Amino acid sequence: MNLKPIREICGMKIFLSQQNYHIGNFESNTRKIIAAIEYAKSQGGELIVFSEMSVCGYPARDFVEFNDFINKCYNSIDEIKQHADTIAVIVGSPARNPSREGKDLFNAAFFLYGQEIKAEIHKTLLPTYDVFDEYRYFEPAYEWKLVEFKGKKLAITICEDIWNINDNPLYRICPMDRLMEQQPDLMINLSASPFDYAHDEDRKAVIKANVLKYKLPMFYCNAVGSQTEIVFDGASYIFDKQGNLCKSFPLFEEATEGVILHEDGSIDSPVLETSASAPATATTLLSLDEHLHTDQIYQALILGIRDYFTKMGFSKAIIGSSGGIDSAVTLALAVVALGKENVRAVLMPSPYSTGHSVDDAVALSKNLGNPYDLIRIDAVYQSLLDTLAPVFNKLPFSLAEENMQSRIRGNILMSIANKFGYILLNTSNKSELSTGYGTLYGDMAGGLGVLGDLYKIQVYALANYINQLHSHSGISLIPLSIIEKAPSAELRPDQKDSDSLPDYAVLDKILFQYIEKRLGPDEIKALGFEAPLVDRILKMVNSNEYKRNQFCPIIRVSPKAFGVGRRVPIVGKYLS
Amino acid sequence: MNLKPIREICGMKIFLSQQNYHIGNFESNTRKIIAAIEYAKSQGGELIVFSEMSVCGYPARDFVEFNDFINKCYNSIDEIKQHADTIAVIVGSPARNPSREGKDLFNAAFFLYGQEIKAEIHKTLLPTYDVFDEYRYFEPAYEWKLVEFKGKKLAITICEDIWNINDNPLYRICPMDRLMEQQPDLMINLSASPFDYAHDEDRKAVIKANVLKYKLPMFYCNAVGSQTEIVFDGASYIFDKQGNLCKSFPLFEEATEGVILHEDGSIDSPVLETSASAPATATTLLSLDEHLHTDQIYQALILGIRDYFTKMGFSKAIIGSSGGIDSAVTLALAVVALGKENVRAVLMPSPYSTGHSVDDAVALSKNLGNPYDLIRIDAVYQSLLDTLAPVFNKLPFSLAEENMQSRIRGNILMSIANKFGYILLNTSNKSELSTGYGTLYGDMAGGLGVLGDLYKIQVYALANYINQLHSHSGISLIPLSIIEKAPSAELRPDQKDSDSLPDYAVLDKILFQYIEKRLGPDEIKALGFEAPLVDRILKMVNSNEYKRNQFCPIIRVSPKAFGVGRRVPIVGKYLS
Repeated sequence: MNLKPIREICGMKIFLSQQNYHIGNFESNTRKIIAAIEYAKSQGGELIVFSEMSVCGYPARDFVEFNDFINKCYNSIDEIKQHADTIAVIVGSPARNPSREGKDLFNAAFFLYGQEIKAEIHKTLLPTYDVFDEYRYFEPAYEWKLVEFKGKKLAITICEDIWNINDNPLYRICPMDRLMEQQPDLMINLSASPFDYAHDEDRKAVIKANVLKYKLPMFYCNAVGSQTEIVFDGASYIFDKQGNLCKSFPLFEEATEGVILHEDGSIDSPVLETSASAPATATTLLSLDEHLHTDQIYQALILGIRDYFTKMGFSKAIIGSSGGIDSAVTLALAVVALGKENVRAVLMPSPYSTGHSVDDAVALSKNLGNPYDLIRIDAVYQSLLDTLAPVFNKLPFSLAEENMQSRIRGNILMSIANKFGYILLNTSNKSELSTGYGTLYGDMAGGLGVLGDLYKIQVYALANYINQLHSHSGISLIPLSIIEKAPSAELRPDQKDSDSLPDYAVLDKILFQYIEKRLGPDEIKALGFEAPLVDRILKMVNSNEYKRNQFCPIIRVSPKAFGVGRRVPIVGKYLS
Repeated sequence: MNLKPIREICGMKIFLSQQNYHIGNFESNTRKIIAAIEYAKSQGGELIVFSEMSVCGYPARDFVEFNDFINKCYNSIDEIKQHADTIAVIVGSPARNPSREGKDLFNAAFFLYGQEIKAEIHKTLLPTYDVFDEYRYFEPAYEWKLVEFKGKKLAITICEDIWNINDNPLYRICPMDRLMEQQPDLMINLSASPFDYAHDEDRKAVIKANVLKYKLPMFYCNAVGSQTEIVFDGASYIFDKQGNLCKSFPLFEEATEGVILHEDGSIDSPVLETSASAPATATTLLSLDEHLHTDQIYQALILGIRDYFTKMGFSKAIIGSSGGIDSAVTLALAVVALGKENVRAVLMPSPYSTGHSVDDAVALSKNLGNPYDLIRIDAVYQSLLDTLAPVFNKLPFSLAEENMQSRIRGNILMSIANKFGYILLNTSNKSELSTGYGTLYGDMAGGLGVLGDLYKIQVYALANYINQLHSHSGISLIPLSIIEKAPSAELRPDQKDSDSLPDYAVLDKILFQYIEKRLGPDEIKALGFEAPLVDRILKMVNSNEYKRNQFCPIIRVSPKAFGVGRRVPIVGKYLS
């Protein structure tokens, strides 16, 4: 027998594990991490990489300000360390800053091997924009060192650390440049990089730009799973040093897979895309494209709903079903995410509801197979009108009476939810939320905003996509009459959205320029939109901040969602 | 005639102007700033200092991400500059970062003189914790230069820049240390330092510590006024170089005043506190003291209500008046803030309300002189029960029926508000919000949370304080029966808060350790609190994050309020 040792023949077998963590649920996260380590070991893995903040979940937000929480992170690392015997493990966790100066924590990667912490790597570039608050908690790294493992020098970075390669760099430091001075053999990046409909392409371009710049293979491990409003889409990547994509992990699913990195830097896996075939610079979306990645949006929303329920410990959703497109799409998504038996639709016609709305809503639930109730609100509405009559004193019908109907529906939905343990899913879309076209505590009620990051024209695109998915059944899952009729809140006779709002086709494009692109009024007008219309819309957006401020978390699918990633003063007087 | 020039006799006349700005309202802010400049000129002022971000208001949050907004800041500076002719003016504003690298903006002070921008000073230490998000927007300063003016060298810093002097410094740089290398003659600090019941003393101690460390006079100018949830309390200070307090600006009020700084560094103003008489180190509050600065809390809440209404363009408030202490205190504060004719109380007894509650609420409004309505909710409640009967199917009375009553009240209050243009003030206290003892869209409804940062025992202290303030009238403004009775939501027969919650005297102290002090369960138990009780309370807090997430802005009076300054994952599984 004269065989070479396996490693010399095969190179090093490196695994990435993209997993769905539950923030602060150390027991569950640790169990998952250990299971993946054991699996990789069983497959001959020598190194396994997890995503950023894997032990505690990302973003743990102010939980990390509790010493108790950080202790639990360290306890998890101790437990995981025991399994890092014949395999090296890289996990993400907060780490204490031993220095007297600076913030108390680092965003760190722990390199575990031989049942010991062999190295601790700190994140340098701390994203503090949009949904990110990292400088709130963490001190940036001030020194950069490679980790040596089995004769290879690893350049380990965390998420944002590889993103400072554009023309207008956000940071004055480039950590990979510093690491390159020490001549690494490969790059490893632990990420928690969230989904939006333009982000997977951007991300792949940025990773590839790093590979082409540094001429090193890249092992990029991203998180997967939804954390309240932020969806992590996985899509981890392995590139060889020529910039060829050798492994592409699935979107929106957990996966643990390995490849062999040969001594010459090549990777033992078929090339999926050659260096030449995919762009190495991110593209910028200049205007709203309602058809962009509807398939990914669909998957993200389903994961967003499912993870919200799973992680909150709930199983059943209730939805107000009006016969309109927003509630129809929400219902269809919820049925896929939770199962038809776990989604209860409630139809609540008022004196101003049209017959076809009820018919459409019934047809929809029959198509979907979910249980539904028909509860007319006329009696409660009349009772409330009677009760308020001495106060209202025969003043004409106004917005107050419209909102009353909406809030009665909110009360009915929440009452059933409280009685039977449902969670109310909200159906408001981004166009409504932008303009304040909704009733606080009425149709704005709910625990999770399913469509709150989709403009109305994107909701239509999603409805059509859902129907296409089910086209084999021969029926329109979402009845065409729901898609084709003019949108209406049906809170007064013959009401149409277009009575109060500009056409969605124009409205949504202006909103996109203001919200996603952050253009000011003059810049938007310069794109050719009518000046008074632009002023009117921007004023609607800014003067309704107080409503959005009380809205539930919205599953984020765009680069700029309402909620934690968009922070606007309520008492501000700007364009309002 | 052989008189010395006036300046040599008198030194330099320096003004501070603490003003209440409206975020994004450039016209109003600029007008105020110019009026103060003209006043200072008329009083022989040679230099006038305004607070941090004075041109646009603080915190402008994501508004600064709009180029259009920054343009408007520069336009304001251009306008203000014209008035900086014979007087030098220091105003705060965002400034563009001309470098390719780093964030696009600085948090800056502009030194204006001779109708020109003579210098631009950048903030170094960017608070990114609690309510602050400065690193979200701004690049820190990397160089430090004095500004020379009339033979004096000014060390100009912005807010946080003088705060890095404690034992566990948050930052690795101390900007005043760098400026000291250039031998300044005086320190000037532009601040937007918010109120909390412990902060004025901390702030004075920090300013004094700087004076004693650098042996220079300090001109410290703070903002005043409430911005949605954050109250700025003014309290600007002037210290001479010995550490004597020479001028103390009022709390919660605008003021523009000047002193003469002599050539020898002394200040021409009577010493209010000698160097020895006030501490130069901040003290730490170790446990909840419900009597701490009740007077300041009272003023902060009144300013918070008044500014919310003024800046939103509203004038009239509506409040659900239950006969309980929370609504009583809220009503009393609103009457002071807005005038009794502008505050409408609505009493909405249900079948479970006690007679004395209605009597107490009536007596309260008679004492306060505000209009009130009595609207029984029985009929609407019965109508809703009837409507839901087929769904509820004779299940026993539960939380659902309690919440129904609360949401009917929410609907009535919002209906009257919508009909007549009132804003609903919320009356929930911090103990309730902590534990989730409240109904979403019911008693948790409202545009502004008046008591949301006061634990129940602090609400009692405030009620007693209010009654003391009015003791000259011979009556208890807040009827004693309201203060003395056992708290109850009155949503089922004979209900008491103590059925669901621990005694407030213990609950509030545990909550304080968890929320304000961020102690973990073991640390709180080590203070002597019962272990199962601590676990139960912490679980209540963490599992009710989804409710607080939809709550309105809360006027912040403590070092850690719910809302923008406390960011906790909703789907987290930590202590829950």
